[in-house]
Amino acid sequence: MDQVLNCAESEVRSYCRSYPATFSAARGSHLVTEEGGQYLDFLSGCGSLNYGHNNPILKSALLKYLAADGITLGLDLKTTAKNAFMEAFAKRVLVPRSLSYRMQFPGPTGANAVEAAIKLARKVTGRTNVIAFTNGFHGCSLGALALTANSYNRGSSAPLLTGVHRALYDGYLGPDIDTADILRRQLDDPSGGVDKPAAIILEIVQGEGGLNVASRGWLQKIAAIATEHGALLIVDEIQAGCGRLGRFFSFEDYDVVPDIVTMAKSASGFGLPMSLVLLKPHLDVWQPGEHNGTFRGNNHAFVTAAAAIEHYWGEDAFESEVRRKSRLLLDLLTDYCDNRPFQPKGTGLMQGIDVKDPVLAARVKVEAYQQRLIVELCGPFDEVIKLMPPLTILESELIAGTKQLLSIIDDVADAAICSPQSR
Amino acid sequence: MDQVLNCAESEVRSYCRSYPATFSAARGSHLVTEEGGQYLDFLSGCGSLNYGHNNPILKSALLKYLAADGITLGLDLKTTAKNAFMEAFAKRVLVPRSLSYRMQFPGPTGANAVEAAIKLARKVTGRTNVIAFTNGFHGCSLGALALTANSYNRGSSAPLLTGVHRALYDGYLGPDIDTADILRRQLDDPSGGVDKPAAIILEIVQGEGGLNVASRGWLQKIAAIATEHGALLIVDEIQAGCGRLGRFFSFEDYDVVPDIVTMAKSASGFGLPMSLVLLKPHLDVWQPGEHNGTFRGNNHAFVTAAAAIEHYWGEDAFESEVRRKSRLLLDLLTDYCDNRPFQPKGTGLMQGIDVKDPVLAARVKVEAYQQRLIVELCGPFDEVIKLMPPLTILESELIAGTKQLLSIIDDVADAAICSPQSR
Amino acid sequence: MDQVLNCAESEVRSYCRSYPATFSAARGSHLVTEEGGQYLDFLSGCGSLNYGHNNPILKSALLKYLAADGITLGLDLKTTAKNAFMEAFAKRVLVPRSLSYRMQFPGPTGANAVEAAIKLARKVTGRTNVIAFTNGFHGCSLGALALTANSYNRGSSAPLLTGVHRALYDGYLGPDIDTADILRRQLDDPSGGVDKPAAIILEIVQGEGGLNVASRGWLQKIAAIATEHGALLIVDEIQAGCGRLGRFFSFEDYDVVPDIVTMAKSASGFGLPMSLVLLKPHLDVWQPGEHNGTFRGNNHAFVTAAAAIEHYWGEDAFESEVRRKSRLLLDLLTDYCDNRPFQPKGTGLMQGIDVKDPVLAARVKVEAYQQRLIVELCGPFDEVIKLMPPLTILESELIAGTKQLLSIIDDVADAAICSPQSR
Amino acid sequence: MDQVLNCAESEVRSYCRSYPATFSAARGSHLVTEEGGQYLDFLSGCGSLNYGHNNPILKSALLKYLAADGITLGLDLKTTAKNAFMEAFAKRVLVPRSLSYRMQFPGPTGANAVEAAIKLARKVTGRTNVIAFTNGFHGCSLGALALTANSYNRGSSAPLLTGVHRALYDGYLGPDIDTADILRRQLDDPSGGVDKPAAIILEIVQGEGGLNVASRGWLQKIAAIATEHGALLIVDEIQAGCGRLGRFFSFEDYDVVPDIVTMAKSASGFGLPMSLVLLKPHLDVWQPGEHNGTFRGNNHAFVTAAAAIEHYWGEDAFESEVRRKSRLLLDLLTDYCDNRPFQPKGTGLMQGIDVKDPVLAARVKVEAYQQRLIVELCGPFDEVIKLMPPLTILESELIAGTKQLLSIIDDVADAAICSPQSR
Repeated sequence: MDQVLNCAESEVRSYCRSYPATFSAARGSHLVTEEGGQYLDFLSGCGSLNYGHNNPILKSALLKYLAADGITLGLDLKTTAKNAFMEAFAKRVLVPRSLSYRMQFPGPTGANAVEAAIKLARKVTGRTNVIAFTNGFHGCSLGALALTANSYNRGSSAPLLTGVHRALYDGYLGPDIDTADILRRQLDDPSGGVDKPAAIILEIVQGEGGLNVASRGWLQKIAAIATEHGALLIVDEIQAGCGRLGRFFSFEDYDVVPDIVTMAKSASGFGLPMSLVLLKPHLDVWQPGEHNGTFRGNNHAFVTAAAAIEHYWGEDAFESEVRRKSRLLLDLLTDYCDNRPFQPKGTGLMQGIDVKDPVLAARVKVEAYQQRLIVELCGPFDEVIKLMPPLTILESELIAGTKQLLSIIDDVADAAICSPQSR
Repeated sequence: MDQVLNCAESEVRSYCRSYPATFSAARGSHLVTEEGGQYLDFLSGCGSLNYGHNNPILKSALLKYLAADGITLGLDLKTTAKNAFMEAFAKRVLVPRSLSYRMQFPGPTGANAVEAAIKLARKVTGRTNVIAFTNGFHGCSLGALALTANSYNRGSSAPLLTGVHRALYDGYLGPDIDTADILRRQLDDPSGGVDKPAAIILEIVQGEGGLNVASRGWLQKIAAIATEHGALLIVDEIQAGCGRLGRFFSFEDYDVVPDIVTMAKSASGFGLPMSLVLLKPHLDVWQPGEHNGTFRGNNHAFVTAAAAIEHYWGEDAFESEVRRKSRLLLDLLTDYCDNRPFQPKGTGLMQGIDVKDPVLAARVKVEAYQQRLIVELCGPFDEVIKLMPPLTILESELIAGTKQLLSIIDDVADAAICSPQSR
Repeated sequence: MDQVLNCAESEVRSYCRSYPATFSAARGSHLVTEEGGQYLDFLSGCGSLNYGHNNPILKSALLKYLAADGITLGLDLKTTAKNAFMEAFAKRVLVPRSLSYRMQFPGPTGANAVEAAIKLARKVTGRTNVIAFTNGFHGCSLGALALTANSYNRGSSAPLLTGVHRALYDGYLGPDIDTADILRRQLDDPSGGVDKPAAIILEIVQGEGGLNVASRGWLQKIAAIATEHGALLIVDEIQAGCGRLGRFFSFEDYDVVPDIVTMAKSASGFGLPMSLVLLKPHLDVWQPGEHNGTFRGNNHAFVTAAAAIEHYWGEDAFESEVRRKSRLLLDLLTDYCDNRPFQPKGTGLMQGIDVKDPVLAARVKVEAYQQRLIVELCGPFDEVIKLMPPLTILESELIAGTKQLLSIIDDVADAAICSPQSR
Repeated sequence: MDQVLNCAESEVRSYCRSYPATFSAARGSHLVTEEGGQYLDFLSGCGSLNYGHNNPILKSALLKYLAADGITLGLDLKTTAKNAFMEAFAKRVLVPRSLSYRMQFPGPTGANAVEAAIKLARKVTGRTNVIAFTNGFHGCSLGALALTANSYNRGSSAPLLTGVHRALYDGYLGPDIDTADILRRQLDDPSGGVDKPAAIILEIVQGEGGLNVASRGWLQKIAAIATEHGALLIVDEIQAGCGRLGRFFSFEDYDVVPDIVTMAKSASGFGLPMSLVLLKPHLDVWQPGEHNGTFRGNNHAFVTAAAAIEHYWGEDAFESEVRRKSRLLLDLLTDYCDNRPFQPKGTGLMQGIDVKDPVLAARVKVEAYQQRLIVELCGPFDEVIKLMPPLTILESELIAGTKQLLSIIDDVADAAICSPQSR
């Protein structure tokens, strides 16, 4: 049977090649196979399960909603669930942060949120060009893919990926060159060859791109450049948002307020498809239904999202907890890399180790899986081992899992040294 | 509160403007407001709720799955739920119809399915041009939007919507001109100015475009043209599929086998976001993860989808039932239009009345809502009143609701004649 | 030597493959080879030599100008020669026809004129889409090539050829279908899938496309559609203008005044590179130098152009003469085709015979060349034999050359019937 | 009359606004107005008149050709004049430099040459992306304009200017950053976001962009990058070629052999429209007539081009002379800038002074014209005063004209200091 099914799903499948077991259940930080094997999950659905698998608080809210025959799909009708979500989001997230945004619910994927954001930016400014960055990842539908730097994904679509200028992310040329200055230089120069931008879009931490973190100074410069040149600043929070960096929004510690924010992944908190675009009110020039889609009101997701916000974001405790775990992880990784040829990457609970060697990284991933630890790679060459556990992971699990991983890296690296010919 | 929330959601919202109540629950063919008002639903989430709201069979499966802490989000991991869905789909849908397709699960929206389909067609053929039709609707992300004919949605994105040749849908020039011949003429002519197509994409019934139905002869000609010119035939089943026309696939009665099929809306059966691309096995040239996305494994949707297939598509009874209701509806609408200046449109349980007057249609929609009947409009000028009830609607509900609607049309039309100045 | 030179010029060369002699001189309607062979020229530099080769009146003006060291290249400086041309053009061409146009001199090729015209149309309207027609030919630079229908020329550039909707030229679907109605239908329909056009560009006679002639009614409808939809009407006069149809402008007998006119080929009258864009004054929103180019002031061309206008267009005699020759040619071709399976095409001194068979046409061209008559083919399959002699050809030459050609066609057709296997 | 004519020519005219006289004749380094005023020409038709106005050697060859009724327009027929040009070019230019190129004659403008070059590069490689540089200028037709950095020219066409990645020219970020390394970094990085390039196109000296000169090391690095990434290196010689830098080709002193070379401007030597694309023989994958155009065989230009090559490029004398004048000019400008806040720019006889102030530069240009000296500005802000005299200028004229110009700069700068409020 298994072979039949493998055969029946398209070759496009990927994660199941690395983690070939069939999984049947999941709780908290663990995935469980049909055979009952437990795997510690340091991938968290690529950041979609910040509150863990089947979080009981969220699950309970969903069960209650289902029991009452709550609306499941509501297009963009007003529903009790949407209202409750919007109220919770306004009250617990926006108001305490003195943020004022309109909410748009596009099709419930990150790519759709990005498509909506750049479409709106182009409409507002009457310009076409959008500035995106090296190693940026924003999705695979055509508009989002044009922003995405990865050549593997761009593939044969390249001739159609227009309307984007590629700028250099913070640190791309090493610590001595400020890439924001390069962008400003080109935009200030009428012969710089970069058309006036509708928007500048970026991730605060590049999750797929290798856990590159924007520095405060750089981001503020980029924000200033956007303002000077009449471009909107779009922060793509899809992977780094929803608490992943120890604040609800990834941009909170930067003293920068984006014009548009795109959210998805952990927006629902339960792994249910949901996306959200936040727009400064004066930018809300949409006509009714101008950008539409059937699933833009996934009410199950509204229910779990509201429950997550109410439970985790009412007070500061959760933020503090995430930041404490982040420091703990940082210390572990920094110590580890200290006397090894590796480099710690990332921030918050979105950290990793650049082992500078894709083959080594790939072996670590395989060995970790053998040892029932799920970790993914990132970076342009898949040379960075990424740790992205649920934010709700127990400290003991985090420490044990990380130590286990570090030990695996050592083992694999040692083995590689012993048998270089195998590389 | 209500005003605050209105204000907080983007101006892009649309349905909630026509049906302004706040809905809290839904069962079968009815939506229920917070105040307990019951509305008969002839919209069905734009065709996403073919088995009705909170269908108890599907709901029961989902509750069971939730209780067992089944995987919610699985990226593209193998899961018990996905396996079960794929097995059911192969066994109940593909095999009985002698169809052989690989399954791809893109981001769970129709637009994502369309993006995947045309990306693959371009990769397979090495060509860029895709042929799409007048009044076609395929989604709002950039690649899908390029295929969509509606100028309201294309809007300010128009300069970016490249790689598409617009051909004329069946009947677009009236009954005497075969528009397939025009397409063939241009493609056969080396100076016809239409680049060799990667694909021809179409809907069997144009749901948004006005319930235009492709004739058997026309579709077969189009399929032949695709073959002759090395283009893939993509049938967009998103609105017309999943039983809506009385067969599982909308193309079944046409003796045409598409190279690629896109599904979404009622794929999960429960209104949960899910999409599916079916590809002939030899076209499956995807590289692992080449087209990806976080929510491409919405396991809740797999669970309800499998339950729906097992329950409704195991035997012929359901198909027969839908076709019986379709004929019933056809008779009602045909009789009604017979001595009125209106035209029945569509087929299956995707029918409507072209009242030839957008103002009249708009008034009917408002009055129907006043009378607790939810109907939507379609067609280029919103001049067609669309009836798209759940397939599971009781015959008595269908008859009563339809008669009520026809009576409303008469009333509104009469009122319009009495007070023409008000138009 | 000859082989060396063949080898040295790129494979892109084409005419010299059909007419392989080396030509050294030319006078009136004849080309002369290095060996002294005389060839009657029914090609006229693709319509660039309307006044014949080395027309003595024009040559005399050029020699005088050279003797006085007149400016050769003047960028867009005011020069005596440019002033004289503009004055002559205004006085002899525009004023008598009650036309009011500004003149723009882009780079001196037809493609450059077309690029300038559509760039301006897009600037004026703020729209991107340009409507061009089946079998239209407007040049090979990227903007012009997007308008050109020929797949051979579009070739590998196809993915880059954006911003154009291809409409159907007059008669494309046979005599019973008015293709202007189809365009109107699509543009009037908000879901017709054709974005609001910046311009509609067309040739009155499609020279490369097979000598297809726009009918008066069709062109007037197209002009009306342009007006209704806020699009500019651009008439590409490059091949059919400068007297070729018996009036200075090809559009004169149509009661249509284009918003923009593109001219090249015979604009200089002597075969010197020159192009010209005429724009209605209110459309002249160019910024200084916004569209530029080094050779936009080819003063030698101004000198011969002015001489040609002064000599040939001061009175009606020349127009009458061309129309007389046109009727003469029409009678010859019509009579000839009357009892043969061929079809006369074109109008003015831009006529030909559709022999319905590319192989036959190719053989006729070869045999004609053997008999020292230069004729070219056109049409999507090169199935139309094109007669485009200098307008100044002697009637006796025209009659003799045409009869010779018709006799060749008969001979070749007979031979083909005798030896069908050779095809 | 003058006003009428001004009015009749489009607002796009530009040079005639700066130099408003009407010019009637020109000889050597001087332009002559209708009133007999003599202007020293330091513009040379933007580098199209390297051998001076109405060079008697070239003029004599043209007069002789005209007298013999030589072919004027020959499409791409073999003609005596073309053969002679090709022979001279092969013998005097290519062979002595050990270069092996096929020659393509596109439409006779630089833009057409560039269009042909990138179209071929895309065809050869099957890729779309072309890398062009900040401050590069390659023409105004759509394909060439996409490569051009200048926002003034890109203007409203920007949304259509696709298929180009903008890289940073040598020195763009100051002397400490090697911009070739940045390009290599991005191309080596699979997530660098720059699609595999079909070609890298550049000018050795950026004439419009401000007389920026590529360094030897940088250009060699760029050439190596092109090779490593399978891209063709296209050197745009249109302004800097034909002896302007003291060698026939601008790239000769760089030990780099471009895959494709584009030439125009001074190709004919006499100011007649002519362009030329040189391609390495193995790249010549053109189909016959695939890229065509009427004026691609301007035989008058072939005649003067051959005469220029035979006379000036048979021996080293001319090259030596140009280099001597270049050094002379360099010394004058360097000395002058030494104790002033200005910077000498450029090389060869394509030098200038960056006065760092567009207002000052504009005033110098006006004052120079008052004093009968024609100089143009360049650079992104028109802040560089460009000296581009005919290569045949007398040393005495060069010295006197340059000193006059330097004195004007001083005068204007002094006046500006005295009356700052006037700025």
